[in-house]
Formats: sequence, C-alpha cells, structure tokens
Amino acid sequence: MTQLINNDLLGTQNQSLESGLKSDYTALGEKLARSDINIEAILQKAKAFSIAVPSWGVGTGGTRFARFPGQGEPRNIYEKLDDCSVIQQLSQATPAVSLHIPWDRPSDPNELRQYADQYGLMFDAMNSNTFQDQANQENSYKYGSLTHTSQAVRDQAIAHNIDVVELGQKLGSKALTIWVGDGSNFPGQQHFKNSFAQYIDSIKQIYATLPNDWNMLLEHKIFEPAFYSTVIQDWGSSYLAAKETGERCLSLVDLGHHAPNVNIEMIVSRLAQFGKLGGFHFNDSKYGDDDLDSGSINPYQLFLVFNELTDIQLENPSYSPFYMLDQSHNVTDPIESLMYSAAEVQRAYVKSLLVDRKALAHYQQTNDPMMAQATLKQAYNLDVEPILQMARFQSNGAIDPIACYRESGYRQQCAQARPVDPNKTGSGII
Amino acid sequence: MTQLINNDLLGTQNQSLESGLKSDYTALGEKLARSDINIEAILQKAKAFSIAVPSWGVGTGGTRFARFPGQGEPRNIYEKLDDCSVIQQLSQATPAVSLHIPWDRPSDPNELRQYADQYGLMFDAMNSNTFQDQANQENSYKYGSLTHTSQAVRDQAIAHNIDVVELGQKLGSKALTIWVGDGSNFPGQQHFKNSFAQYIDSIKQIYATLPNDWNMLLEHKIFEPAFYSTVIQDWGSSYLAAKETGERCLSLVDLGHHAPNVNIEMIVSRLAQFGKLGGFHFNDSKYGDDDLDSGSINPYQLFLVFNELTDIQLENPSYSPFYMLDQSHNVTDPIESLMYSAAEVQRAYVKSLLVDRKALAHYQQTNDPMMAQATLKQAYNLDVEPILQMARFQSNGAIDPIACYRESGYRQQCAQARPVDPNKTGSGII
Amino acid sequence: MTQLINNDLLGTQNQSLESGLKSDYTALGEKLARSDINIEAILQKAKAFSIAVPSWGVGTGGTRFARFPGQGEPRNIYEKLDDCSVIQQLSQATPAVSLHIPWDRPSDPNELRQYADQYGLMFDAMNSNTFQDQANQENSYKYGSLTHTSQAVRDQAIAHNIDVVELGQKLGSKALTIWVGDGSNFPGQQHFKNSFAQYIDSIKQIYATLPNDWNMLLEHKIFEPAFYSTVIQDWGSSYLAAKETGERCLSLVDLGHHAPNVNIEMIVSRLAQFGKLGGFHFNDSKYGDDDLDSGSINPYQLFLVFNELTDIQLENPSYSPFYMLDQSHNVTDPIESLMYSAAEVQRAYVKSLLVDRKALAHYQQTNDPMMAQATLKQAYNLDVEPILQMARFQSNGAIDPIACYRESGYRQQCAQARPVDPNKTGSGII
Amino acid sequence: MTQLINNDLLGTQNQSLESGLKSDYTALGEKLARSDINIEAILQKAKAFSIAVPSWGVGTGGTRFARFPGQGEPRNIYEKLDDCSVIQQLSQATPAVSLHIPWDRPSDPNELRQYADQYGLMFDAMNSNTFQDQANQENSYKYGSLTHTSQAVRDQAIAHNIDVVELGQKLGSKALTIWVGDGSNFPGQQHFKNSFAQYIDSIKQIYATLPNDWNMLLEHKIFEPAFYSTVIQDWGSSYLAAKETGERCLSLVDLGHHAPNVNIEMIVSRLAQFGKLGGFHFNDSKYGDDDLDSGSINPYQLFLVFNELTDIQLENPSYSPFYMLDQSHNVTDPIESLMYSAAEVQRAYVKSLLVDRKALAHYQQTNDPMMAQATLKQAYNLDVEPILQMARFQSNGAIDPIACYRESGYRQQCAQARPVDPNKTGSGII
Repeated sequence: MTQLINNDLLGTQNQSLESGLKSDYTALGEKLARSDINIEAILQKAKAFSIAVPSWGVGTGGTRFARFPGQGEPRNIYEKLDDCSVIQQLSQATPAVSLHIPWDRPSDPNELRQYADQYGLMFDAMNSNTFQDQANQENSYKYGSLTHTSQAVRDQAIAHNIDVVELGQKLGSKALTIWVGDGSNFPGQQHFKNSFAQYIDSIKQIYATLPNDWNMLLEHKIFEPAFYSTVIQDWGSSYLAAKETGERCLSLVDLGHHAPNVNIEMIVSRLAQFGKLGGFHFNDSKYGDDDLDSGSINPYQLFLVFNELTDIQLENPSYSPFYMLDQSHNVTDPIESLMYSAAEVQRAYVKSLLVDRKALAHYQQTNDPMMAQATLKQAYNLDVEPILQMARFQSNGAIDPIACYRESGYRQQCAQARPVDPNKTGSGII
Repeated sequence: MTQLINNDLLGTQNQSLESGLKSDYTALGEKLARSDINIEAILQKAKAFSIAVPSWGVGTGGTRFARFPGQGEPRNIYEKLDDCSVIQQLSQATPAVSLHIPWDRPSDPNELRQYADQYGLMFDAMNSNTFQDQANQENSYKYGSLTHTSQAVRDQAIAHNIDVVELGQKLGSKALTIWVGDGSNFPGQQHFKNSFAQYIDSIKQIYATLPNDWNMLLEHKIFEPAFYSTVIQDWGSSYLAAKETGERCLSLVDLGHHAPNVNIEMIVSRLAQFGKLGGFHFNDSKYGDDDLDSGSINPYQLFLVFNELTDIQLENPSYSPFYMLDQSHNVTDPIESLMYSAAEVQRAYVKSLLVDRKALAHYQQTNDPMMAQATLKQAYNLDVEPILQMARFQSNGAIDPIACYRESGYRQQCAQARPVDPNKTGSGII
Repeated sequence: MTQLINNDLLGTQNQSLESGLKSDYTALGEKLARSDINIEAILQKAKAFSIAVPSWGVGTGGTRFARFPGQGEPRNIYEKLDDCSVIQQLSQATPAVSLHIPWDRPSDPNELRQYADQYGLMFDAMNSNTFQDQANQENSYKYGSLTHTSQAVRDQAIAHNIDVVELGQKLGSKALTIWVGDGSNFPGQQHFKNSFAQYIDSIKQIYATLPNDWNMLLEHKIFEPAFYSTVIQDWGSSYLAAKETGERCLSLVDLGHHAPNVNIEMIVSRLAQFGKLGGFHFNDSKYGDDDLDSGSINPYQLFLVFNELTDIQLENPSYSPFYMLDQSHNVTDPIESLMYSAAEVQRAYVKSLLVDRKALAHYQQTNDPMMAQATLKQAYNLDVEPILQMARFQSNGAIDPIACYRESGYRQQCAQARPVDPNKTGSGII
Repeated sequence: MTQLINNDLLGTQNQSLESGLKSDYTALGEKLARSDINIEAILQKAKAFSIAVPSWGVGTGGTRFARFPGQGEPRNIYEKLDDCSVIQQLSQATPAVSLHIPWDRPSDPNELRQYADQYGLMFDAMNSNTFQDQANQENSYKYGSLTHTSQAVRDQAIAHNIDVVELGQKLGSKALTIWVGDGSNFPGQQHFKNSFAQYIDSIKQIYATLPNDWNMLLEHKIFEPAFYSTVIQDWGSSYLAAKETGERCLSLVDLGHHAPNVNIEMIVSRLAQFGKLGGFHFNDSKYGDDDLDSGSINPYQLFLVFNELTDIQLENPSYSPFYMLDQSHNVTDPIESLMYSAAEVQRAYVKSLLVDRKALAHYQQTNDPMMAQATLKQAYNLDVEPILQMARFQSNGAIDPIACYRESGYRQQCAQARPVDPNKTGSGII
C-alpha cells in the first residue's frame, strides 16, 4: 500500500500521545462500564465506520464573489486521489472517494482504478453534472437539464447520466447521485407540473439503464442556483420522484438543502419509514447551503440525525445508506477540513451508539419528555474523543491527524510539485 | 331570508357609490376588451366565487400573552351565525360557515340547521378538536391525541372525530378537517416513526366511517403548539398520510403553516399533480402561523396560489377544493376583517383569471422568463376593484362593505345585546 | 434555613453516587492537568455561578391553543417561592427569583421578603407587565402601552413601571426589565417613527425615577404577540433606546427573540463592545420564541454565547450581566425543567472557561480558522458533568437533582396541598 | 445626444400604443380626481424619479455553480455604458450609472466621462472591491480586507477605497459605497470585537479623505460570502459604524441582505429617524441574497418601503437617498431586466404618492388598523401603469420598453459586434 505520509513520523507523533490516550480511554471505559456499556464493542463500531470524501472537496471552494485558492491544489483526479489517500491514511474513516463527471473523467478508467487501488481507495457514488455547460456541448443547461422544456436538452442530460453510470461500473461504484440545478428565478418562468413530470420521465429513463446492483440517489434542494423555485425542492418531491421511478431509486438528504428551521432528523425518519432513505451529504450551515464543515455549527443536530440512523439500524442491522462529506472549503486546507469533519461525523455516530435505547423507549412510551431528552443528552455530553483516537490509533491512523499532517509538510510539498493552474483564478461570478 | 343589515341603508350606500363604480367598471371593461377579455365573463366568475368563514373567526382572537376582547362578541353558535350572516349579506362571497366541535356543538342540530337556513347559510367542512382538553374528558391530550402512545387516548380522539362527522351529516356538511397539535418539545420525546404510524392508523379508522360523499382533509403545520417536532409537519407527511388512507382523504394547505421562505404555490401544484389537494385555509403571515388577514402581508403570493388553482381548473373545470378563511382577528372587528379578507382572496382569484395563459404557456415553453413573469404581472397590476364591487352590487351586497357595516351600527347593537361573558377574560397563557 | 427536601434523603442519594463522581472527577482533573488547567479553580467558578429563575416559570406554560396544567401547581407567589426553594436546594445554582407584577404583587412586601429569606432566596430583576389588561384597569393595552398613541395610556403604563420599581426596592431587587408587546398586525397600523419616539420618551420617564443603584433592562423581540411589526424589534432598536435613555439603561438579550439564522453570539459581542449588554433571558428554540428549555435544541450555540461572555469577563472581571431562565414548561414538571436548564447553562459556562484563550487568540491573529474552531471544540467536547456534579455536591445540593426530586415526592405532596385553581383552565386562545 | 435605439422605431412603437394609453390615463385621472388627486402632479413626480443602474448589472450574472453567458455581453466599461444608455433611452428612469472598481477602471477618466456625456449619463455612487483578489495584488483578502488582523492588508484596502474616491471625483460621482465580504466561516475564526473595531478604524481613515460634498455609504449583509458571521451583519452594526465615523457616513439598505422574515420597511424608518439612511440597493429575494429583479417576488414589500420614504420626504422634502438597482440577471437579458425593474421601483414610488396620508395618520392615531391598512391597499391596488407609460412617453422613452427593445434588434447587433470573451467562461466555483 502506498502511503504519502511517512509512517515513522506518524509513529513518533502517536507515541507522544499514546499514554494520555490510554489513560483517557481507560477512564472512559470505566465510566461506561458503570452503565453496562462495553467500550470495546463501541470501539469496534467506531473503527468500522466510514464516510466517502468528494473528489472536488480537496480543492479550495469559493462563492459567486470570489475563490481564494490555497497552495498546492490538486490539478487533476490523480492528484485529488493523492490528497484523498492522505485523508484516509491519517483519519482511517474515509476509504472511498466520490467522483464528479466530467470534472474527474479519466482517459483510462482502468488506470484510474489501479491508481486508487495502490492507496486502498474505493469509488463511492458517482455524481453527474448537468448544472454547468461544458465546452463543445451541443445544448445549454441555462434553462434546465433533465426538466428542460426541450426534448433535445433532456435527452442530452439523460445520456450524460447514463454515461456516468457506465464509467462508474468500470470503477467499481455502485450508485449514481443526481442533483440538478433546474428551477426558476421568476414566478411564471416554469410550469411547475410540467417541469416535475419531465423530471420524473427523465430519471425513469436513466433508471431503466441502471445495473441491478446499483442505486440511484435523488438529491433535493430548496434553493440555489435557482432562486424562486427548484424542481425537486424538498423531501416530499424527492420521495414522489423516487417512488414513481423504482425500488432502487432513493432519496438523498443533504443537511444544508432545507428551509430555515426545518427538522431534518424527522425527514430522515420519514424517508426511512417509507423505504426511501438512500444516503447523505454531510455538511453544516447557519443560513442556507453554506457547505460548512460537518458539525461546525450545530453538532447536536448531527447527533440527532445519527440518533435516528442508529434507531433504524437497530431494527434493520443491514441497513447501510451512502454517507459522503459535501463541503466547500473556502478558508481552510481541504485535507484538514475533511479529516476533522470525518471525525465529527464519526463522533456523532459513536455518541448515538451510547444512547440507552431501552430507557429512551420507556420514557417515550410513558410520556416523560424530561427523562427522554436527558437520556439523549447523557450520551451526547460524554466525551468520546478517546474512542475516536483509539480507533484511529489501532487502525494505524493518527491520534491527532491535523498535527501529524502539519508536521509532515505534505502541503508544502504539494505547493512545490503543483504550480498554480492559471485557469483557476480567483475571480468570482456576480 | 332574514337580513340583519337594513336593506334601505344598504341601498342608500350603494346608490352613493354607483355612478363612480359604473364609470370605473366601464373603463376597465374597455381596457380588457383591448386584450380580448370580456369583463362580463369575469364578473360572472367573480360572482360565483365563494369562501367559507370559520365560526370561531367572528370572535376576537388572541395570543398566549393576552386576548383583548372586542365589543359585542358572539357568545354561542347562534350569535356567531348572526355575525356570519352579516358578512355574507354585505360581501356576498361567504355563503358557508365552518364549525369547530365541541365549541359549536348544538343541543339540537336540526334547530341549528334551520337557524342557518333563514340566513341562506350552509355548513362547510367540520373541524374536530383534539388539541385541547374538555371538561369531564376522560383522557388528556397533553401528550398527543390521534398519535398518543396510549391506545385509550387514541381511541378517544378517534371517537370524537367520528362523532363530529355524524353531527356534520345532520348539518349538511361534506367534509371533516383534521388538525392535531400532536408533536414534541424536546429531542427524544417522541419516536418519530411510531407517532406517524399511529397517526395513519388513527385516521384510517376515522376514514372507515366516513360517508361516501365526504372528504377528509388533513392539515399539516411545521410548528406550534409543539415546538421541536410536529407529527404531520409538512406537505410530504400530509401526502403520505392521505395516500395511505384512501381516495377521499386529501391534504389541506394552510398558508401560514410552512417553514420560512417555502414556495407555497409549488406545494399547491405538487399536491394537485398527485391528486391530493383538498382545500385551503387562507390567511397571511410574516413570521410563523401569524394568522393575519389574507393578503395583508404578501398579496402577490396569494395571487400566485390562485394562478396555480386557475391553471389546474383549466385542465379540470370541475375541480373545486375547499376554501376557508382561517385568521385570528386580534386587533380588528372580526366581521370587518372577514369581509375584507374574503374580498382579498376574491381579488387574487379574479386577477388569476386575467392571466393570458396562452401567452404564458408560450413563454414558458420557449424559456422567456422575462415575458413569462411580465405576463403574470400584467394581470396582477390591473385594478380589479370595479369587478369585485360590481359582483357585490349585482348580488345585493355592498359596494363598500365596511363603510356600510359601520354605518349600520350592528356592532353597537351587539355590544348592548351581548354583555361580556365573564369567562372569556383577557388573561393569556405564558 | 428552611429546606423542603429532606436532607437525609438528599444525603442518601448523594452517597450512592459519590464514588462514581469522585472517580470521574479525578480522571477529568488528570486530563485537564495535562493541559495545565487546574480543575479546582474551575470548580470554584462553577460553584459561584448563579442564574435567576422566573416566578412564573414554576407554573405550567401553554400556547394560544391550550394549556395542560400539571399537578400541584403553585397558586400564589408564596407557593411559587416554595418551588423555587426546591430548585435552589437541589441545583445550588438559582439563589434568586425574578418577579412579574402584577401577577406576583404581595399584599405585604416585607412579609414576602421574609418568606424568601427563610429559603435564602433573593429577588432578581423585577418585570413589569403592560402586555395584558388587568381587571379594573382604566385604559386598555390592546393597541399599545408605553408606545400608545394616547398620552393617557402611556402615562398609565409608565406609572405601572414606576410602581414596580418601588415594590422592587422593598424586596431588594436592583433592576427593572421592560418588555412590551407593542407593535402592529397590519402594514400601516402604526407610524414606525412615532411609536419608537413614544417608546423612548416613556422609558426616559421611568428611568428618571430609577434608584441610583438600579439598572433598567430593555428586552427586544422580533415578533409575537404583534405579527407585522414590533416597536423594539431587534438589538439595533434596543441599543438606540438604551443609548438615548441613560448609562444604566441597558439591553437584554432573550435567546428566542431573533429572526431565523441570526448570529446571537455576535449580538452579545456588539452590545458589550458598546457598553449596553445588561442581561439575558435564557431558553432555546427551533422556530420562533418557542421558550424551550435552555440548551435543549442547540447546546453549542449556548456555549458560543458564554464563549463571548467569558471573553468579555477576561477583559473586565467585574462585568456581571443579569442571567435569568425564561422558559415555558408546557410538557414537563417545571421544577425539573428549571433544575436541568440551570445546569445546562452552567455547563456552557464551565466549558467556556476551559477554552485555551491564548491559543485561540493566536489562531485568530494568524488566520488559522481550522485550529481556532478546533480550540473551541476541544473545550466543548469535554465532559464537564463531573464538575457540575461536584459543585452541587460540595454546596449541599444534589448530585442528580431530578432523581432526588422525584424520590422526594415533593410534587405529589403539592398535588394534595394545592387543589386545582378553577380559574386556571386549559382552554386556549385562538 | 447619441441614441442607440432608432428614434423612428421608438416613435412608431409609441404611436401604436398611444391611443390606448391616453384612454387609460384619462380614466385613471378621472378616478383619482374623485379622490381629489391631481394625476398631473403625480405624473410630474413620476417623470422626476430616477434610479441608478450598476455597470456590472448589464452583464449576465451567475452563481457559484455556473454562469450561463448571454449573447453580446459588454466586454468593457464603454460597452457597458452603451447598454446603460439603451436602458435610459427607453425607460427614462435611469440617468446614472454606478461603477465598480477595479472592474470598470478606465485608462483615462476624462475620456470615460465624455463617453458617458454623449449619452447624457452621469456617474452615481462608486463601488470599491476588496472582496476579490486582483492580479498582482500584494496582499490577499482571503481572510478579510478592511477588518483583517494584519495592518498591511487593512492599509491596502484603505488605499484602494481612497483611490476609488479620487477616480470618482474625476467622474463627477458624489458617493462611495463600501461593501466588504469580511467575516468568518467557523465559530472562533474571528474575534468579533476586534474585527468590528478594525472595520470602524479603517472606514474612519477613508472618511478622513472624503471630499466635503461626498457621502460614504456602508452596506451590511447577514451572510455570503462569509457563512458563520459577517463583520457588518445588520443595520445595528451599520448604524454604529456610521455613527462613529461621521455625519456624511450613512447606512445603505440592500433589500436582499437581511435575515428571513425581517421587517425591512421598519429598518428604513429607524435609520431615517436617526439620520443615517443614505441609500438603497434594490432587488428582490425569496431565500437569501437572491438578487432577483426588484418587485418580482414581493411587490407589496417594495411599496411599503416607498411608503416609508414618501412619509420621510413629506417631512423633509429635500431628502434624497441614493437609489440603485443591484440585481444578478442570470436568466434574462440584463437590459430587459433593468428596464423592467426600474419601472417596478417607479411603480412602487408612484403608488406610495397616492396614499391618503391624512386619512392614514387619522387611522393610526385612533387605532383603526382595518382602515389604516385599507388606506395603504387603496393606493396599492390602483393600476398606475398609465402614469408610468405616460411618464416615459412624455420624456421620449418607450411606452413599452421591452417590446421596443426587442423590435430594435440591439441585442442581435451586440452579438455580432461583441464576440464572446473566452476568459468569461461558464464554469462555476463550488
């Protein structure tokens, strides 16, 4: 296995933190034991947890106003995989990468797969792109793609999605995630019913070509880039489209794609209850689709989402939705953000495992809201950092991934090896 | 027909405004004729428009902080009908009243029906109430009603709804509207899946007893009185419940029950597209479920809702959802607010009839958002007040209902005839 | 000192938890010591922390739809003080009570003060009430109080506030909190400028009578009970009013009184920077002014508020704003909610003390957002429950206040001793 | 005067609409006369109304996801002025252009001024840009500009603003508008107090160099491009900064820069009451800073803003804030959007002139909310299109600007004369 961070450095770093970690882990283990929780069992689950990183996430993000590039940004899918391998090596929670086509289209899929293999990286859900026009593209998506009023545009968008699936098959992916920017900026611009009917018709055509072991994930969003209406604006529309399309067509929940104040954990429950919860794009937000780092704004909400997921998995242990980080790293080193965020999601997951579900069910059944909420808080208030650190340590990752990464000088090496791409300027779009 | 406003007064008032109205009406007619619109056809539709008033709407509303009673408030369902008859006499747009049980439960339904008959009033959808505890009620709804964890509580709530339907049949109603306050105030308090499953199970039991010519309307709401989660929080949950329950179980849209920024007109379209749009509770809001007067905050949104409805009715002329005003009149004379609001809804409806739909469809099809929105605005910017006034005038209502009402002294007569009910104090609930 | 919870019971309960607590506390102490933090110093600050409880908070709250009374609710200010003494006895964090006048007006202030003294309770900020009409009140507040267009109404509201201050002086209070429901439900209803000018004029008159050692706290709120506009809608208006009025007139921040998505911790910073941050009403919310239990929805936000406060106090150690819990306990035992919430606020405070501020300042100065946020999270992710428990234990409170309270049977005794007040029914105001 | 739209075409178009216009205008005049309003006086005010267009508004806008260029987009400030001249020629409401530096920096300011002069165009407020990095810029604005922790970065941003003022003086501008993207994406990233203190310090330095007849306008924004906090996030911060800085430093209100649900017309009133309302950026929005066309989503809100402005101007007739359209035209021809939007703003202004202010004041004073709101609606519901059309017609503009523009073929000519700039691709920033 190729590893870009020197293992001696990693070992030295871990060594300096090991004794403190063991002390903390032991103390936590004793505390949990008093509640009849076996810390080792939790640790095994923590080690088994994984979440995909998006290939585009290792580049610096931006806004319509500006993009401020970082140093040594990856210039192609191979350099992106290099960065992803560093994230996985240190965090040991991100073994798969999600590609965006055409951004990441390789000239030779086999070569790409082998390149990933050397790092032990797999390919998660494939993402199509019909929200931008590409050079030499026949029809423009300015007024929609899968929902466009013109059959020719819809056909082009459908063909692109089918093409992405074909590529994904060669790479070992098992899912297609579809997000469209289709919508309108003015009352009257679109006929709501027709647009949605065309959406459903289009995804049915894509679904018809889907391999039997693949899922199709529909991503909804309340606004942006369309600002008056979006064709698949909420989980209700997502559910209806998935339901109309077929069994393996499922809804994907992006935490930042909802109206203000909406109870997202309830949406998680509803979609699961009706068999349509397929996956997540994790991030955090304060205002809109801010694409901030997962758990950075409201970590309790992230815990509540996992509280639902753990509840669902109690009933159906084999249930395993797609998890991906979907964040825009505008002011941080993307590698650092992705390592930290993966651990934040893992933290929420681990805490959800510590909820005393028997007690919770009792308090729910007997209408004791005080103790029901206290039961959740009892788990949430625990400091599970020792479990996360031990999981990484035992998996040959870093106890403190960011410190180790900074010490490694990886970014500085990239800055030298990857001169700035002059086509990726900092000018925004207003 | 009994009429509580003196017809001579009404005639005198109208006479003083008639010449101005005719001048305005003629000018508008000529203007519309230039766009090939026949004002008389529009007038006939305006005259045929009707919207129900809620019996509880004729009392002064309040907030959890306080209620400031008005003068001469109705003390029982008979006095409420008196007030409703005044609204209908002057506005000629509100021939039906929607009852709330047990608030309006009559000792003798036949007597009540005859009382309404004398005014030419009918009974619209019946409303059940399981969000409050009633005196001598066996089980409390503190922790839920149709979704309660206890079978006994659910049974009680189901029985109440069935009882309301039976009463409604005697009164000539044709629909049951179900709104529950069920939800939770704390993360963990309720099991989302179980609560929703119990909701669906309960409404199925009610539905099973529904007369064949009745509809059941499910009302969703994002928050209040529950502040962390509500069992039927949005149109997605409402759709699922209605779909599971049966063909005549439909969703009802209250304009104030959505998350901030949500595109309500699109929800209207979605529910109609999937055959589940059953009715509306009209009001307006700036923040939450403010229950402000319809069209008082965002009249263009009201127009856009009717733009959808008119579009739906073009395709299916017999489509006729239930319309009701659902407002809390905290600072106005409720009779005035209801007359004014009925006209505001009617205004939005009439303007939606003036949209050049052939042009709109063309601009939508050819992706001309500027002209598509301009087509809507062209209709919206018209002053259709002459049509509304003429519709009332020709139907023996008042050209200026509020001026006529004030001149009549009706409220002052009520103030004398209806001494304040000492049980209805102004103290709030905090 | 009178204590309503049996001290033997308390002792027995604590004894059963003491060994686990000591083990957790020692482990945490060792962990903190590795970061050069002395747990004992933190413990002393935790023990010194206090937050007032509102007298009205010990009664069950409700909404405009309904109130579902709990058992044994206090029927007067004396019984409310009994309940507050239990909260303080067990939580040891709530030594002061905030009164609401006229709800809590005693016939003999001295007697009330002595009654509180026996429990060791003090009186925090006094709250006036001009958002409700009282029996035998000359002028109605239906259309405003301190901002009413009528001088007579304004004078009545001013006189009430002055009266409340006089009463507060007799009780040992040092502050007056003013919240008005004044505002409008319709565009056009109020003249914005005139209303605000009248507000400022009115509070100046109250301020002129304020004792020299008193503060006046202005509470703003974006909506409810007024739904189109409120006279003092946000911190900008609050600041302007406080600035115009005088040095001891300050702004009070209620966590639930802001527009969606607003960054409240930044408002805390702004008001402090300009010398106008006077106090807090703590609660939590998901939608509007939900008045949910503090920290129950977004505990990280509560931590961020205290992160600002601790930062301010570093610069100005004597700075001490007024803290009060302001919650509506609709579904829980209010005593339980207030004990739990006091601890949640205390938890946020204690965590804020653990932030490595030197490191934070460095990361802020060098624009290292990743490590800046990680520095906050490092403190936030710690489990400080042992410190909170030890603080209570050493102060003769309960290690587990709710378990001890339930064991005591206090609520059952109240249920017997306090038969239901027939005037406090469950009927709501819609 | 150079005119790019053929005047014969304009005349022919107008001729075809003239008779209908005169008929409508006469009918409206008669109707208004019945309310003692002289339509000619209103017409004169409508003709005197003007609003600036932003130079960047004539290019197609985009989002972080994509930009879909239109045909014949202007490639430099001269071509932008060509387009602005067309807008002014046809709409006769946009005689001034607002520049953005460095985007629009001319090599020779005098030449630019003369170029504008030929079209009768003036230069409105100048806009500086410190939210993007420019080629060859010494310091990056990635972590702030006027508020950066580094003195060097702040000095660079200050110098840029001073430079913009110098350029503006040569062009005849009289104001500098400052908007910064400064803020943070993570809790802890910025020290709120220090950032704001640095902001105030920086703008004071700019203000110190401001010509005596210039104003400085501070633009606040709740979020984007910073997603956790922005340094000047709301009108409260804007007021404080303007107040600290000096008399000619004023606040600018952009309609899309507020938290959800916020009452913007009240902010207008507050800032005016305290002497700090300097200007507006007009646009509309449904979700965030959508930058949609003015009045396209909530035209009643736009009317309510002008209702405040007209009220202020009654008291102070010489009061004249800066008005500018600030919109992102992503799916329309920008020239069409700007012409249509200018008319929508003008429409709101004209309707605000028709409010019976004597009646309104009476209803406000006597607390008659029904008639107060009806007084606003009476004006709002009028169809003032004939006044807008007549204003354009009498000023030699187009009765129907969009029809005339389309007929002229101007865009097609541009498409030929302005081949696509290959540097302005459609790729977005995610």
